[in-house]
Amino acid sequence: MSGNTFGTLFRVTVFGESHGSHIGMVIDGCPAGLTIDLDFIQSELDRRKPGQSKITTQRKEDDHFQILSGVFEGKSTGTPIAGLILNNDQRSNDYSHIQDKYRPSHADYTYDSKYGHRDYRGGGRSSARETAARVMAGAIAKLILKEHGIDIFAYVSKVGTLEMSKKHHEIDPKDIEKNIVRCPDEASALKMIKYIEEIKASGDTVGGVISCQIKNTPAGLGEPVFDKLHADLGKAMLSINAVKGFEYGSGFKGSELKGSEHNDEFTKVGEKIQTKTNHSGGIQGGISNGMDIYFNVAFKPVATIMKEQSSITSSGEETKISGKGRHDPCVVPRAVPIVESMAAIVLADFLLRNKTSKLGDIK
Amino acid sequence: MSGNTFGTLFRVTVFGESHGSHIGMVIDGCPAGLTIDLDFIQSELDRRKPGQSKITTQRKEDDHFQILSGVFEGKSTGTPIAGLILNNDQRSNDYSHIQDKYRPSHADYTYDSKYGHRDYRGGGRSSARETAARVMAGAIAKLILKEHGIDIFAYVSKVGTLEMSKKHHEIDPKDIEKNIVRCPDEASALKMIKYIEEIKASGDTVGGVISCQIKNTPAGLGEPVFDKLHADLGKAMLSINAVKGFEYGSGFKGSELKGSEHNDEFTKVGEKIQTKTNHSGGIQGGISNGMDIYFNVAFKPVATIMKEQSSITSSGEETKISGKGRHDPCVVPRAVPIVESMAAIVLADFLLRNKTSKLGDIK
Amino acid sequence: MSGNTFGTLFRVTVFGESHGSHIGMVIDGCPAGLTIDLDFIQSELDRRKPGQSKITTQRKEDDHFQILSGVFEGKSTGTPIAGLILNNDQRSNDYSHIQDKYRPSHADYTYDSKYGHRDYRGGGRSSARETAARVMAGAIAKLILKEHGIDIFAYVSKVGTLEMSKKHHEIDPKDIEKNIVRCPDEASALKMIKYIEEIKASGDTVGGVISCQIKNTPAGLGEPVFDKLHADLGKAMLSINAVKGFEYGSGFKGSELKGSEHNDEFTKVGEKIQTKTNHSGGIQGGISNGMDIYFNVAFKPVATIMKEQSSITSSGEETKISGKGRHDPCVVPRAVPIVESMAAIVLADFLLRNKTSKLGDIK
Amino acid sequence: MSGNTFGTLFRVTVFGESHGSHIGMVIDGCPAGLTIDLDFIQSELDRRKPGQSKITTQRKEDDHFQILSGVFEGKSTGTPIAGLILNNDQRSNDYSHIQDKYRPSHADYTYDSKYGHRDYRGGGRSSARETAARVMAGAIAKLILKEHGIDIFAYVSKVGTLEMSKKHHEIDPKDIEKNIVRCPDEASALKMIKYIEEIKASGDTVGGVISCQIKNTPAGLGEPVFDKLHADLGKAMLSINAVKGFEYGSGFKGSELKGSEHNDEFTKVGEKIQTKTNHSGGIQGGISNGMDIYFNVAFKPVATIMKEQSSITSSGEETKISGKGRHDPCVVPRAVPIVESMAAIVLADFLLRNKTSKLGDIK
Repeated sequence: MSGNTFGTLFRVTVFGESHGSHIGMVIDGCPAGLTIDLDFIQSELDRRKPGQSKITTQRKEDDHFQILSGVFEGKSTGTPIAGLILNNDQRSNDYSHIQDKYRPSHADYTYDSKYGHRDYRGGGRSSARETAARVMAGAIAKLILKEHGIDIFAYVSKVGTLEMSKKHHEIDPKDIEKNIVRCPDEASALKMIKYIEEIKASGDTVGGVISCQIKNTPAGLGEPVFDKLHADLGKAMLSINAVKGFEYGSGFKGSELKGSEHNDEFTKVGEKIQTKTNHSGGIQGGISNGMDIYFNVAFKPVATIMKEQSSITSSGEETKISGKGRHDPCVVPRAVPIVESMAAIVLADFLLRNKTSKLGDIK
Repeated sequence: MSGNTFGTLFRVTVFGESHGSHIGMVIDGCPAGLTIDLDFIQSELDRRKPGQSKITTQRKEDDHFQILSGVFEGKSTGTPIAGLILNNDQRSNDYSHIQDKYRPSHADYTYDSKYGHRDYRGGGRSSARETAARVMAGAIAKLILKEHGIDIFAYVSKVGTLEMSKKHHEIDPKDIEKNIVRCPDEASALKMIKYIEEIKASGDTVGGVISCQIKNTPAGLGEPVFDKLHADLGKAMLSINAVKGFEYGSGFKGSELKGSEHNDEFTKVGEKIQTKTNHSGGIQGGISNGMDIYFNVAFKPVATIMKEQSSITSSGEETKISGKGRHDPCVVPRAVPIVESMAAIVLADFLLRNKTSKLGDIK
Repeated sequence: MSGNTFGTLFRVTVFGESHGSHIGMVIDGCPAGLTIDLDFIQSELDRRKPGQSKITTQRKEDDHFQILSGVFEGKSTGTPIAGLILNNDQRSNDYSHIQDKYRPSHADYTYDSKYGHRDYRGGGRSSARETAARVMAGAIAKLILKEHGIDIFAYVSKVGTLEMSKKHHEIDPKDIEKNIVRCPDEASALKMIKYIEEIKASGDTVGGVISCQIKNTPAGLGEPVFDKLHADLGKAMLSINAVKGFEYGSGFKGSELKGSEHNDEFTKVGEKIQTKTNHSGGIQGGISNGMDIYFNVAFKPVATIMKEQSSITSSGEETKISGKGRHDPCVVPRAVPIVESMAAIVLADFLLRNKTSKLGDIK
Repeated sequence: MSGNTFGTLFRVTVFGESHGSHIGMVIDGCPAGLTIDLDFIQSELDRRKPGQSKITTQRKEDDHFQILSGVFEGKSTGTPIAGLILNNDQRSNDYSHIQDKYRPSHADYTYDSKYGHRDYRGGGRSSARETAARVMAGAIAKLILKEHGIDIFAYVSKVGTLEMSKKHHEIDPKDIEKNIVRCPDEASALKMIKYIEEIKASGDTVGGVISCQIKNTPAGLGEPVFDKLHADLGKAMLSINAVKGFEYGSGFKGSELKGSEHNDEFTKVGEKIQTKTNHSGGIQGGISNGMDIYFNVAFKPVATIMKEQSSITSSGEETKISGKGRHDPCVVPRAVPIVESMAAIVLADFLLRNKTSKLGDIK
């Protein structure tokens, strides 16, 4: 209940500090009999890892993982799946300069207020390092979803004020990994990459937006009234470091429309009930309707910049601080697999939760 | 775990259908010794009730409530507080025309997909009627927060494309209840009211945005990593009927900024550590820092319109449908106390959760 | 999290004080489509109600109930089922004599220590009155179990030192309701009734043991490692007022045996895998094996006696106290349906929880 | 929700199979600032480890542990504490003879029924090997309790039919570790040891009872109505491998008494409210009253015996099976620290949960 567990039936607990020995995760509630594809898990971690391109941090972490339990002869056993990732780049001596300083827009001050005692090295528990554990759990969630044909993909749709030209229904998911910024619109991608390089050169950082789509979701996922599908997706996204906003379907723009413009009329395509438009973003009353789910996630600029800033020490003195080390100039390219992972965890959880909705299903 | 309970230590369970006999709520975890101000609870329900002005639905529901347990001699006893509200406007004969039709952008189809059997009268469980129970719980949460000096207020900042002129730090909360649209900027309010009246006359509906501010929050509320304060606020808001988006602090706009523009430098004002700017929206690393918390919530237009729309019956036939009865042309004026209530429930919960963060506190 | 909710997927929240206006319950997670047999629920409440025979308290409470939500056209809708029972015998004026006195072996002192403010009338929340809400929830759980052929019955096997002559496998459940002490062994029942009448006449009370059997449970219910089926059954029983002990299968006696005496060898009867003996009580490794589940629950004597006892007032003065009013001389006859109800809630919950154990089941 | 997490605020998640690479645990909710005494944790694991005396299994496992997170500069940080123990005695080749056979009174058949796919080596997840992770978590819980002066100790009070001569209030906890059977009554201990040696020599096993006492608990721990202190203690104990029964205070014997014999009258000793007797076992209405808590836990004989038994294969054929390897002839001596650990986890959890019971406490 202290916030390090997510999910109801597919339940992920994560742990670990940026500069501790390991980070890791435990999944409780993964159904037995699932083939655990280790190569797929590694490939997902590789999409998130530092140092993967010129526009990410140059820190090197291989993020090799180890499964400790819950898998036997290649398949899940229904018991907890624990996984570890070694922190192999723990250069703790780098951090003496910030030990007593509250970095602007970081969590140093709030952790100190809350706990009184904190691991200040690299942000400790508040570092985005912990998201590697989420990607590991998300990869296993994706394996469950694949068994049901559910497909999730995210991509960068905006960097600073540079917005992708294509609409969400125009993109081809195969284009996402074709460039290092993970924007499936080549022209926009080139501009974004150039912009991030300029930002990096100036010692600054910039924010961005990630869009995500979920296809082939069956109707019926989501729970009234608090655990609406989009409410849990929203919480999942907002829990990712640096996220400032979430909107799904028509989103904030939809609030400008009239009901007659916004409503999605039902129709039948073959034997399948569909809607003619999809402002609802695949969710009505908090429950999936079988249409595509899509949403946007806003990320603020990374707080660590190379410029000097004013701050306060833990003993309350005014001080100056400037970033050292190797940091991402823009977080969104590496956050794409994190967004997908959290979406996968939510969907897998609701898939399991929907197995007892009807009396007929439990016989 | 079926989605009708919210919160960890201050835990609210809600129940009831739009046309059942009652809706209600149970709070488990309210500390003992809190004076339960019944007049205040009623005044909060009155702010949400139907029929309160010319721009809301003309349905009449008095929303009188009854406390069944957990309060003795005017004070909470620490045991569950159950409260009921009578549904006194159950005109179920109105609903035969929609019994077998899936209303566009309502939850009829998705509930049918999920459960197979549903109360179709007035939307049943998916109706926003259930939010009255949230307001009752929220009023009690506000009573706890008042004991700590924490103040929450929300207001309408946008209707359709009409945006309030004032910035969030320019408004005076005392102006919110001065007009029926609950916008604390009189000039903007008049335009909004006029626009909603036009929308209503045309048989259409329109969306809008509610902004909310929380003042005097102590530093330290929120839990890493999944239960960040803004993640739970986001989930709480997204769980309200018709909500499509949530952003806090700098929000989606903040994703366009550079780190050097966005970072909030620390400074000291008297003995208090503050930030010079507040793009963080009072939350860093998911934990409150003592500055004002502020966020926006986007609502889609009400789905029930008086115009004819295409739809499908539960047996899969194409059909036509048009709204009957008395519905809100714009949901945001009445949703203001709902937003405040859910915010209060989240804050009360994290206030309790923070009582065991430090060893020193539990002695 | 304050202890008034039980269960994971079939989740029961209860509320209400002995002398408040109502007690009640909310079930979240009852699958949709279940026929809610109101007569059956009433008949279960009647088995628990006061005043039903000469050996129970002579208080009269009809315990009529009302369903407020979650049921439409006679069937569950999958949304929360709220139910109320009116407290029609609230004679609060009886309680001034105990307002400031801590009754021996009651919860007056501990509630005061914990909460500082309590409803002292009739024990308030600590009264066994709340178990009526459990019986209502348990009746609905039984309706789910009936759909799966699972049968639960409990009975009085001991009153004071008077133990039933028959072994648990010798009894016929049809004999349970044939006498007012609910012991399915007529000779023993007569002795027990006579003994309780003597105890009552002397102004004293006496304890007893209830045994319970569960038949036709499928193999596979229960979750490793903390939520073993018998661990949750044990918690459920120990949460009932006045319970001091729980044992299942061979129980405390089993701890005296050797492995070679205690082990249950497997064999095949027709196509079904069974065990030759059943010291395991139908549960191995915390998971049901398809054999009969059976367990014993020990109840202490009712604390309210008509004899004078020493006590302390809330201001710490020595005082004398003696019981007034109408109380049960022995709680076990009326506790039989409570034991069954809690067992039914546990079984229904694990039945739902087992629906996602295997990947094959969730497709 | 799949049963591998225990506790509400002090929350322990465990993982690992008998013959996997590691077993481990994650504690979420340990308050920040607690000194983590590594030597003490190791000493607790040593009390549970195999091979410690002639009356335990001769398997050798050193049970060295490693803390991966949540501790910085020797103190807890409030973030999750993950700990690992290496399984250094994985001789998996020993298990081919039981791969397809359901061992009598083991969990092979029930795991197979539930999951379809299981790690059959050494019982996999159902092995008592997992209790080492509980002891690690329990040691940290004890460190919290020590800060509050709460003291927990358990001991063997019965082996087979050999019962300790001393009453629970006559023992001296310092005598517990003076002999290898952990019975604080030397005469009884010698008999028990001799008996276990005979049992071992005959290739058989025997059950026993562990008693536990908790001293210096403040009044007010425990939550009505389902989460009574003794209900959670009961669940905690019943979740330990091989446990068949739990009783607290007067227990099963108490059900034979009259109210006038059983009631604990209040009195004042100095300024402290106490009871003259303590049949209540320190708990009234599910909440601690400040008196000593005491309870008994019954363990069945270990299921693995060296004698030939009948069984069934997973394909349903009749077969014979007999134990191989090194197993405990009697589980209770090594289960003493496990009982203490689970009790400590329950008490630490309720200590935290009680910090928000009163409005006055949360200011």
